[in-house]
Amino acid sequence: MVICVIGIGLIGGTLASSLKDNKFAGRIIGVDSIPEHSKKALELGLIDEIGTIESAIKEAKLIIVSTPVDTAVEILPDIIDKIGRHQVVMDVGSTKEAAINSVKARINRGRFVATHPIWGTEFSGPSASIRGAMKGKTTVICNPEDCDNDAIVLVEQVYNSLEMKKVYMDAKDHDLHAAYISHISHAASFALALTVLEKEKEEDKIFRLAGSGFESTVRLAKSNPDTWIPIFKQNRSNILDVLNEHIYQLRQMKKLLEMEEYSALHRIMLEANDIKRIIN
Amino acid sequence: MVICVIGIGLIGGTLASSLKDNKFAGRIIGVDSIPEHSKKALELGLIDEIGTIESAIKEAKLIIVSTPVDTAVEILPDIIDKIGRHQVVMDVGSTKEAAINSVKARINRGRFVATHPIWGTEFSGPSASIRGAMKGKTTVICNPEDCDNDAIVLVEQVYNSLEMKKVYMDAKDHDLHAAYISHISHAASFALALTVLEKEKEEDKIFRLAGSGFESTVRLAKSNPDTWIPIFKQNRSNILDVLNEHIYQLRQMKKLLEMEEYSALHRIMLEANDIKRIIN
Repeated sequence: MVICVIGIGLIGGTLASSLKDNKFAGRIIGVDSIPEHSKKALELGLIDEIGTIESAIKEAKLIIVSTPVDTAVEILPDIIDKIGRHQVVMDVGSTKEAAINSVKARINRGRFVATHPIWGTEFSGPSASIRGAMKGKTTVICNPEDCDNDAIVLVEQVYNSLEMKKVYMDAKDHDLHAAYISHISHAASFALALTVLEKEKEEDKIFRLAGSGFESTVRLAKSNPDTWIPIFKQNRSNILDVLNEHIYQLRQMKKLLEMEEYSALHRIMLEANDIKRIIN
Repeated sequence: MVICVIGIGLIGGTLASSLKDNKFAGRIIGVDSIPEHSKKALELGLIDEIGTIESAIKEAKLIIVSTPVDTAVEILPDIIDKIGRHQVVMDVGSTKEAAINSVKARINRGRFVATHPIWGTEFSGPSASIRGAMKGKTTVICNPEDCDNDAIVLVEQVYNSLEMKKVYMDAKDHDLHAAYISHISHAASFALALTVLEKEKEEDKIFRLAGSGFESTVRLAKSNPDTWIPIFKQNRSNILDVLNEHIYQLRQMKKLLEMEEYSALHRIMLEANDIKRIIN
């Protein structure tokens, strides 16, 4: 099968190389607006050839859109209008409602499958891609009832070939949950990095004490703003809700510390320990 | 050399077993107020025998205090008063000013060396200890000018034997830096866990989307409040300062998102990316 991947960065590059390695794809056409990215992707063997959106529409059975989510909503309507009834388009962005809305009035709506594989790192670009990294991870497939049956089946085959678990979800629910489970972690990490970098202006040796705990909480602050600004934009209202709640929790903690209410502080830390149920 | 470790948890157990493995210690006496901990430590071979503070003072050349920091400041003055001039006491707590203040008026002050090895995980107790885990990490030694020369030399030998890097620092500076580089990461992580657990009350499937980014930012929320409340208590004023700054940064981020000031948001995310200089 000929597959075209538009946007060959961390996610696109990982998908492309994994689908080449497991032979799901006979040939991978890579498309990227940054010429150095496509060149690098070819050099790394993530893709078989460099193409354009037009050549992809002509040749590919499956088109995977893995650009930043703002670009995705720009190019999806046009792609969906131009493909034939045998072709399928899927996206892999971190927000789902905007992607679905961008094609909802189109005749070919059924050819589009909105997905979100839950995998990533703080790095970006084709060199950040990791062959086979999504194995065992979960992918979300949104609003499958709006897709043609053969389109859903093909996308399920893609994720099955990558040995990923599939979860089906309404796009609105996805975006809410993603705000709590992923987007706030990024916001918090960016803010934490800024907090410490701000202090570094006065205290030049502050980072000598940085340990693994610090590293773990700020590593997401290395993430690419070009990826994350569009996500924050598209999921703005959910992210604002969770930012409010997070600021509230921090202010509670601050208040208890100010008032030296250590038994109440102990109690909320024990409550927070309950996160053990969720992550090992 | 006979070494006594008081408090055989994550840090004490790791130090004890590492100093046994590298033969720096001929014999390790373990002391813990929780009988199951000493029993477990013996069973795991972290220590050679179970003792008491009294037996440690009688027999050990070096006494390592690795209890929670509130217990440390309670027991340190008594230990320092009772030891002989050939013995050395060191602590390994995450706050340093309180430990030093607890013994500063004592005749034997010079026998005490305040240290903070920068290593840890979110787990606690003797079973959480990891043999040799501190190799290559950094340890802080505070106010060495207040210690007897032979006491400092012995403690340096301890850390050299563990192949750790040594940094010398004023205790006040240490506590300020530790607030920014470690303690705030814990506060932020506890608050983030509470934020999401709060939402889980309404949305029961919220954690299906949890990925590695989430895990990384909330893993510290699994930390033991019995360890962390005393740290927050002893470093309260520094932690309040950094909590204030962190809340300010989050509110800035929220404000920019509310006002849809995406280019300013992009700019602060780029600034936060500068954390790459510090962590790989």
